[in-house]
Amino acid sequence: MNSWTNSSISSVKKKSMIEADLHFMRLALDLAKKGLGRTAPNPCVGAVLVRDGNIIGSGYHRNAGTPHAEVNAIADAGGTSACFGATLYVTLEPCNHTGRTPPCSQAVLAAGIRRVVIGMADPNPVAAGGADFLRNQGVIVEIGVLEQECHQLNRPFIKHSTTGLPWVVLKAGMSLDGKISRVRGQGGPITGPESQQRVHELRDQLDAILIGIGTALIDNPALTCRLDNGRDPLRLILDRQLRLPPDAKMLHQQSDAATWIFCENEASVEKQKLLEQAGAIIHRIAVDHNGQLDLKQVLQRICSAGLTSVLVEGGATVHGAFLRAGLADEMQLFLAPYFIGDTGTPLLTGSVPLNLKLMEMTTEKLGEDVLLRGLLRTD
Amino acid sequence: MNSWTNSSISSVKKKSMIEADLHFMRLALDLAKKGLGRTAPNPCVGAVLVRDGNIIGSGYHRNAGTPHAEVNAIADAGGTSACFGATLYVTLEPCNHTGRTPPCSQAVLAAGIRRVVIGMADPNPVAAGGADFLRNQGVIVEIGVLEQECHQLNRPFIKHSTTGLPWVVLKAGMSLDGKISRVRGQGGPITGPESQQRVHELRDQLDAILIGIGTALIDNPALTCRLDNGRDPLRLILDRQLRLPPDAKMLHQQSDAATWIFCENEASVEKQKLLEQAGAIIHRIAVDHNGQLDLKQVLQRICSAGLTSVLVEGGATVHGAFLRAGLADEMQLFLAPYFIGDTGTPLLTGSVPLNLKLMEMTTEKLGEDVLLRGLLRTD
Repeated sequence: MNSWTNSSISSVKKKSMIEADLHFMRLALDLAKKGLGRTAPNPCVGAVLVRDGNIIGSGYHRNAGTPHAEVNAIADAGGTSACFGATLYVTLEPCNHTGRTPPCSQAVLAAGIRRVVIGMADPNPVAAGGADFLRNQGVIVEIGVLEQECHQLNRPFIKHSTTGLPWVVLKAGMSLDGKISRVRGQGGPITGPESQQRVHELRDQLDAILIGIGTALIDNPALTCRLDNGRDPLRLILDRQLRLPPDAKMLHQQSDAATWIFCENEASVEKQKLLEQAGAIIHRIAVDHNGQLDLKQVLQRICSAGLTSVLVEGGATVHGAFLRAGLADEMQLFLAPYFIGDTGTPLLTGSVPLNLKLMEMTTEKLGEDVLLRGLLRTD
Repeated sequence: MNSWTNSSISSVKKKSMIEADLHFMRLALDLAKKGLGRTAPNPCVGAVLVRDGNIIGSGYHRNAGTPHAEVNAIADAGGTSACFGATLYVTLEPCNHTGRTPPCSQAVLAAGIRRVVIGMADPNPVAAGGADFLRNQGVIVEIGVLEQECHQLNRPFIKHSTTGLPWVVLKAGMSLDGKISRVRGQGGPITGPESQQRVHELRDQLDAILIGIGTALIDNPALTCRLDNGRDPLRLILDRQLRLPPDAKMLHQQSDAATWIFCENEASVEKQKLLEQAGAIIHRIAVDHNGQLDLKQVLQRICSAGLTSVLVEGGATVHGAFLRAGLADEMQLFLAPYFIGDTGTPLLTGSVPLNLKLMEMTTEKLGEDVLLRGLLRTD
C-alpha cells in the first residue's frame, strides 16, 4: 500500500466521520427544538450519545430547573456506567457552573465519555468553560458542527445572556399594499389559514406576546396559542393609561399564562385595582421623551423575569415604535394576496430611519400567502 | 425475447424520445425569447430542425413583417432541399394563412419535414389550422410539448388576439410597508441596482410603458431602456388635461420610441399643438363615470396600433385605477428591505375589490430586494 492510498483512505474515513457528525448533530438539533418556548431563561439544547455508530441515548432540555440535555441523554442511555467510551453530540457547550442543576461538564467526565462534539460555544460567561474543562481532563472536544443552525435556534438565549434584552420578533399579516386591517379601527384576519397556523406556532415557541392598547381595544383578542399541546405565551399589553376594560377576553379565559399590563407611573390606581382584581399584573414604567412608554425599560422588565423572546403582534403604533427605537431583531411579514387601499391601517405609523434594514430576507409560500422573514439591522 | 422485454425496450425508447423532444423544444423556446418586445403584434416563436439527433437548422421570429421562425430555420439548414425527413420543433403551431408572409404550414410541407413537434396551438382563429393541414398531408404532428412555458412566453400575443386588449403588467418598487416614494410628491429610486436592472429588462421586453401625469411631473423621467442593445418601449402618458410641459425630458432625448399622450376630449388645443411641436402624439379619449380617462379605451387604442403588452409603472393613482378597473394581468412588486412610514406615497390610492387576488405568487431575491410576482385574477 503506497502513501497515496493511505492518505486517500484516511480522507475517506475523515469524510464519513464528518458526515456522521453532521447526522448526529442534526438529530440533537431536532431534539433541542422540542424545548422551544419552554426553557427560558435557559437555551434549547439537545444531546445524542453514540457508540460504534449506534445511538445509545438521547435527551433535551425541557424546562428551566429540570436536568440539562446531557444529563437526560446519559440517563436515557442507562446511567453513567453505560456511557464509557461514547461520543456525545450536544448543540451547546456543556455548562461548567452550578446553577439550578450541577455542572454538566462533570457529569460528562464522570460518565467516561471519550469525545464531545459541540454545536456552539456557550455565550454566557457565567456558564462557559465546559469545553476547556473537558479538554484539560483528556476528553476529545470539537466545537462548531452545524454552528449556524445551533446559533439560530438560540438567538433568544444569546441575546438575553449577552445584552439583558429579549429577542424581539415583529409579526404582521398585511395586504400587498401594506395594510394590516381592511378598515381603520376595525379588526379581522388579513391572511389565510396556513399563515394563521404559523402564527400560532410562533406563539407556542416564543416566551411572550406583546400588543398595544389600540389593538387590544379593537380586537379584544385572546392572545392564546390554539395548537394541540400548544403553550400560551405570557401576554403583554402596552397600555399607558390603563384603558383595557377589566372584562377584556384575555383576562377571563382558560390559560396557563398571565397577562401583564405596562402603564405610565401616573396611571389611575383605581383602574389598576380593577384590572388586578380581574387577574392582570400591572407594571409601571417611565415614559420616554415622546411621552410613550419607554420600550427598552419594558423589555428589560420582561428580561429580568427570565423571558428571552417576545412576539410583537402590533398594531401600527407599536410596530412603528419598536422599529424607530431599534429594539426589534426579526420581522415576519405574512403577505395576503390582495390590496386594501386607502381605507386600511398601514403597517406602521410615524417614520423609521432608512438605514434600518431587513437583512437576510427569505420567503416561503403559505397557502395563498407569502411569508417574508428577515433580521433587522442598522446599515 | 419475451413480450415483457419488448415492452420494456419500447418504453425506454419512448422515454428517450420524450427527453429529446423536451430538450429541442427548450432550445426553440430560448430562441423564441430573443424576439421578446420586438415581434408585436406577432408572437415570439422559435424553431429548431433536427435530423438523426443533430440540429441542422434553427431560427426565430425577429420582427413583424419578417419571415417566421420555421422559414428562418429552413433557410438556416440550407433551404428546402436540406430538410427532407427532418423533425421540426416549433414553439407555436405553424400559421396556415397568408398574412404579411406566406403560410408556414406550406413551407414545412414543401421542405419534406416528416415530423412537427409543436409547443402550443395557435390561439388566433385567423392563423390557426396549420397542425390539421400538416396532419392531413401525412406529416406526424404532436402538440403540447412544454406547452405551459410556450403559453407563458406569449401571454401578450394570446391576450391581444383573443380579447383585443394588451397584456398589462403593473410594476412598482416599494418599501416593506408599501410606500413607493419616501416623501409624497417627491421622486427617487426605492429599490437597489439589481431591481433597477430587471426593470430595464422589462422595458426592453414589453411593447409600451405607461405612467400617470403625476409621476411624469414629479420624476420628469426618460422612460427609456438603459441596457446595451436594449429597445425603448413606446411611452404612454395618462394626462387628462395635457399638463405635461413641452420641455419634458422624454420629448427631448435620443430614442427610437415615440411618446403618446392620452387626454380628455376637452383638453386644450393650444397645449396639444405645443406638445405635438415637441414630438408628442396626442390621443383624445372619453372619460369614465369618475371623470378619469377610460382605461379600457386607452388599452384598445394601444392594441389597435399593434402593441400587445404594456408595463404600467405607476404612480399610486394609476395603479389604483388599473386594479379597480380589473384591467391588469400581472404584477411585479420589487420590495426594498426598509420601511418608510407616514411620509411616503402608498402603492395605490382609492380602494380595490378584495376578490381581486394576486395568484401563483413567486418570489426571487434581487440583491437586497425581493421581487414578488403574480397574476391578477378575480376570485
